[in-house]
Amino acid sequence: MTAQALPREPQQDRSRATRRRLLGAAIDCLASVGWAGTTVAVVAERAGVSRGAAQHHFRTREELVTAAVEYGSEVRMAQMRERLDVLAGRRPSTLDVVTLLGEMYTSPLFRAALQLWVAASSDDQLRALVVPLEARVGREAHRLTVEALGADESVPGVRETVQATLDLVRGLGLAGLLTDDSARRTRLLTQWAATLDQALAR
Amino acid sequence: MTAQALPREPQQDRSRATRRRLLGAAIDCLASVGWAGTTVAVVAERAGVSRGAAQHHFRTREELVTAAVEYGSEVRMAQMRERLDVLAGRRPSTLDVVTLLGEMYTSPLFRAALQLWVAASSDDQLRALVVPLEARVGREAHRLTVEALGADESVPGVRETVQATLDLVRGLGLAGLLTDDSARRTRLLTQWAATLDQALAR
Repeated sequence: MTAQALPREPQQDRSRATRRRLLGAAIDCLASVGWAGTTVAVVAERAGVSRGAAQHHFRTREELVTAAVEYGSEVRMAQMRERLDVLAGRRPSTLDVVTLLGEMYTSPLFRAALQLWVAASSDDQLRALVVPLEARVGREAHRLTVEALGADESVPGVRETVQATLDLVRGLGLAGLLTDDSARRTRLLTQWAATLDQALAR
Repeated sequence: MTAQALPREPQQDRSRATRRRLLGAAIDCLASVGWAGTTVAVVAERAGVSRGAAQHHFRTREELVTAAVEYGSEVRMAQMRERLDVLAGRRPSTLDVVTLLGEMYTSPLFRAALQLWVAASSDDQLRALVVPLEARVGREAHRLTVEALGADESVPGVRETVQATLDLVRGLGLAGLLTDDSARRTRLLTQWAATLDQALAR
């Protein structure tokens, strides 16, 4: 960093803070009013940011929303990592891990991501932005889950079973979209943790 | 049926055929262009039905789309039942059953239902139509899966494991929304069938 850059830091901090406020507001907005109602103007208002400032950061809602889901996923996975670290004194149980995953896939972030995926399914330009993002987030979620479960993917079938766990919690996220599915989800994940322990031979 | 009703049958048949054409076109339309682009007028055109005739059957797109997803689910489950009957000479294997389920949840019907669920998540009136429909379809899919797997739900954990299978294929449907996920899905369902055989102690 050069000496000249230093005086600009407060402005850069403000700019970063504005950007983060927009990203957070975009997730809330998508999760609550859906894709059609999520425009840069609506998100700017929700974030308490002028429309001009918002447009400076994101020219289109596609850019804004994709950046929001990426940012949200990074934050969420960092949180999951922290919570696993807290549990690290004792090795986190399979139930701890699947419960954390279940929470991740029923959060407003998941609802926001779902809006983005579904919008992208009938919009080729948006799809081109979302497919690499989904692949990156998917790989990171897989890596985190393997590590948390202490799974050995060199054993035949283990990789597929870890993937199935992530597809299962994604399906549970969808099942909880319209109604409170938490009681059923808890019973199901408790049983799945037992099945997983057997399948991974922990 | 009274004697008077008989001469009206051809008209009733035509009316039923028109209705079915509209329902089929609504599923195709939802699956390909999404909720925002699916209006009664667009669906009528796709079905080759006049707008007036379409409005006679369905006053709003909410009515049309909900009826379409319900009709599509009934057809799809009847097809699944037929295919299981064909396999009935030999008892269908767990892999047969999960493969059929995997196909069901990656069909245009699933994509259409997904559009409806996501639209309902930010529209209270639509949600009121969709929640009972989703519950009915979910119960029927569960019943069909229990029967096909020959699962004994009086055994602790079996009910949750069957439910997990349906949540898994729903998650796989979502994973296949933007990219061709079929190779991964096949590997995963093959492994899932093995896990399920152990869990259900078949």
